[in-house]
Amino acid sequence: MNKHKIGISDIGVHIPTPRMDLEYLIRERVASDPKLARHMDRAVSTTGQKAIRFPNLWEDTATMAAQATHNVLSRKTDGELSGLRYLVAGTETTVDHSKPVSAYVQGMLQRAGMEVPSSLSSYQVQHACAGGTLSLIGVASMLATSRRDSEFGVVMASDIARYHAASTAEITQGAGAVSLLVEQAPKLIELDLGTVGYCSQDVDDFFRPLGSSIAQVKGRYSMEVYQQNFESAFQDYCERNGEGPREMLDSTDMFVLHAPFRNMPEIAMRKLLGLHLGMSIEEADAFLAERGFFSGVDPIAQIGNTYSASMYLFLAFLLRERYEIMGESLVGKRVLLASYGSGNTMVVMGGTVAPSAPQVIESWDLDQIFASARQSTMDDYLIYTAGPYADSEYAKLLSSIRVPTEAFYLSGVRQDGYREYNFAADARDWLPEREASVDLRRPVPILG
Amino acid sequence: MNKHKIGISDIGVHIPTPRMDLEYLIRERVASDPKLARHMDRAVSTTGQKAIRFPNLWEDTATMAAQATHNVLSRKTDGELSGLRYLVAGTETTVDHSKPVSAYVQGMLQRAGMEVPSSLSSYQVQHACAGGTLSLIGVASMLATSRRDSEFGVVMASDIARYHAASTAEITQGAGAVSLLVEQAPKLIELDLGTVGYCSQDVDDFFRPLGSSIAQVKGRYSMEVYQQNFESAFQDYCERNGEGPREMLDSTDMFVLHAPFRNMPEIAMRKLLGLHLGMSIEEADAFLAERGFFSGVDPIAQIGNTYSASMYLFLAFLLRERYEIMGESLVGKRVLLASYGSGNTMVVMGGTVAPSAPQVIESWDLDQIFASARQSTMDDYLIYTAGPYADSEYAKLLSSIRVPTEAFYLSGVRQDGYREYNFAADARDWLPEREASVDLRRPVPILG
Repeated sequence: MNKHKIGISDIGVHIPTPRMDLEYLIRERVASDPKLARHMDRAVSTTGQKAIRFPNLWEDTATMAAQATHNVLSRKTDGELSGLRYLVAGTETTVDHSKPVSAYVQGMLQRAGMEVPSSLSSYQVQHACAGGTLSLIGVASMLATSRRDSEFGVVMASDIARYHAASTAEITQGAGAVSLLVEQAPKLIELDLGTVGYCSQDVDDFFRPLGSSIAQVKGRYSMEVYQQNFESAFQDYCERNGEGPREMLDSTDMFVLHAPFRNMPEIAMRKLLGLHLGMSIEEADAFLAERGFFSGVDPIAQIGNTYSASMYLFLAFLLRERYEIMGESLVGKRVLLASYGSGNTMVVMGGTVAPSAPQVIESWDLDQIFASARQSTMDDYLIYTAGPYADSEYAKLLSSIRVPTEAFYLSGVRQDGYREYNFAADARDWLPEREASVDLRRPVPILG
Repeated sequence: MNKHKIGISDIGVHIPTPRMDLEYLIRERVASDPKLARHMDRAVSTTGQKAIRFPNLWEDTATMAAQATHNVLSRKTDGELSGLRYLVAGTETTVDHSKPVSAYVQGMLQRAGMEVPSSLSSYQVQHACAGGTLSLIGVASMLATSRRDSEFGVVMASDIARYHAASTAEITQGAGAVSLLVEQAPKLIELDLGTVGYCSQDVDDFFRPLGSSIAQVKGRYSMEVYQQNFESAFQDYCERNGEGPREMLDSTDMFVLHAPFRNMPEIAMRKLLGLHLGMSIEEADAFLAERGFFSGVDPIAQIGNTYSASMYLFLAFLLRERYEIMGESLVGKRVLLASYGSGNTMVVMGGTVAPSAPQVIESWDLDQIFASARQSTMDDYLIYTAGPYADSEYAKLLSSIRVPTEAFYLSGVRQDGYREYNFAADARDWLPEREASVDLRRPVPILG
């Protein structure tokens, strides 16, 4: 086992501002199609979702990744930035078939004035919602192999979850990005790279065919294989640690699972705790509550499905609450991370809260995620679901809105299909600010 | 620096059988459009290409990766297969936006009767033609971190290079896959994971927009940035080795570069050798010839652009020739690998020929690549370039042809867009074998 410590030093987050309240959405949907009522109610009760966030018109996977990375790298000095050695994106909503999101992000950060070096490795990893975690393990392992003190990596998990609208899957949409600073002697979570547990199968629970902007999902089946794979990868993880499942569960202080919706981690944990510790649902919930679990998943109900980013949002919220409750004694506590990717793969990995974690957590302002929310009207939302737009339409839409300063944005799509990104510095010559809901309503003929 | 040896133990190859002779293709193209003659001639002279290979109707990135992996894993016992821990695909021609090629391959191998375990990590890596190399470094580093003797990885590099036809880019098409067996105490090439050199930039030399099956390339510009990045990543590599460029070049026995076409590695090496060793073109060519360089690139002229697989084809051909020339003294020789991905990134990595390399090389039958070629008519080729086909059309086309036994194939695309793959065992109820060129000619209305 590798005794050298490598892991996560910080987490940057970007959640787009538009927010659709699900009660409102369902009321509108049911008004046009009353038959939907029963299905929608059941979907809400299964998932525990209350709202979803969706991208602004000018945002995509690449801009969100850049924004989260800009947040996390702003805490580094220019001199330190020269040590950036790995810039890797995990996503299942790529913006090009060949060029990775990481390459666009590198350019965007440079255009925003950051001294990102060219002496780095840049690529993208795909396996549904596990892309971020798989990138993290790869980058951490490469840092362990080359082991130079000043070098570090950035792993981005950025995604947009789009489903057929109107449908029950619609309420499990979402969008957002996290950016993980990966370092030696990490300041937040030390990862146990030597004992990662895996389980992968060739299944069709979820996929997105070429040419389709919406994903296909077999909801119930996907929940089932998530749980099966969690159990198998957890067993694999226990074997590699040389411990039984019971000891492993007892000695874990925090459980953090992939959270496509608020209730999924709870459903999976109840099953695992029932199986190995013989717990009833109530006992399992008490066990989880004692470990702050619900403070990690409750915020997901307000954000929606961020695919590869979701587990890291869960982690950030949980760490914040645990620090509030435990203070400095949070240091040294054991975390279990379970990252699921449909199609499928499950990664179960252990970690330990690092000595500097309190200072890192104190530097976060996670409430900003909710404070930044802008309530969306149905019109706004329909403009989103009618997208993504063809190049010329996009140009027309963009010309009538104002991108906020300090925002990365898709400034246009060239005739040959190349995507051009920019950073809205103060000097940008935007139209006067108006409410996007007003600006966007008119020019879209598609909706009629 | 990590002293533990990890690297490549074997290389499996799959090149699809259809072969288009470029002299023939250009004659046909020029017959319909005489203005093309000058451009086509120049393109052939720049690239050095003589033929391209393209996929059979039933083949795609996933089937080619499965075929190459089946080849390489057939040499393992069922017991050994349980140690397969990482199954990773590098590609820029994905078959789904969410589910990785590796998951489809896992299922295909299992359906072909291979005891591939579920206790493995499976994902896909994207950065243009460097995806395979980036996967290799990640998998090798993870093996170094977890370090269990019985465990190994498989890295697949599988791609289909499609460009606008008719155009000069057309002659740099190609298709194929390699599958690298990645192990501790490797049998073929020991990799220097601690001293990899990198250079990445945000450039638009090559990309493939969403929804497009053909890539966009700025040919001349891409050649330029390839060379710039090669020089920078080579410098980075030298610094990490603590050696000057001159010593590094002098002490390298084999140079293996990304080969999108036959002449590209030669163009890049001439420049590097001129810069650091002050060599003229003639001197550079003599230096390279002495090191068997041309025996590695010449076969590429007959195969075409296999994107992420091309550097490993180059490596295999070069190793075979070097072994023929040097025999056992090949062991311990130094290799420099330079893998380029447009968009862009360059990876320069060192390696050493392992003690068991002679036995591995002797087990190869690389001539089979050429012996398997089936000369394509213009009609065949036009059926290929008119693809990929919609689901129903594909079903119609597939019903009238015979997939060879032992071949992995796309057996159909479901109404929901899910791709279904299979393995043609002897029992498969195929139509009697006929020439594909005859069978395929009629049912395609698109061509008219």
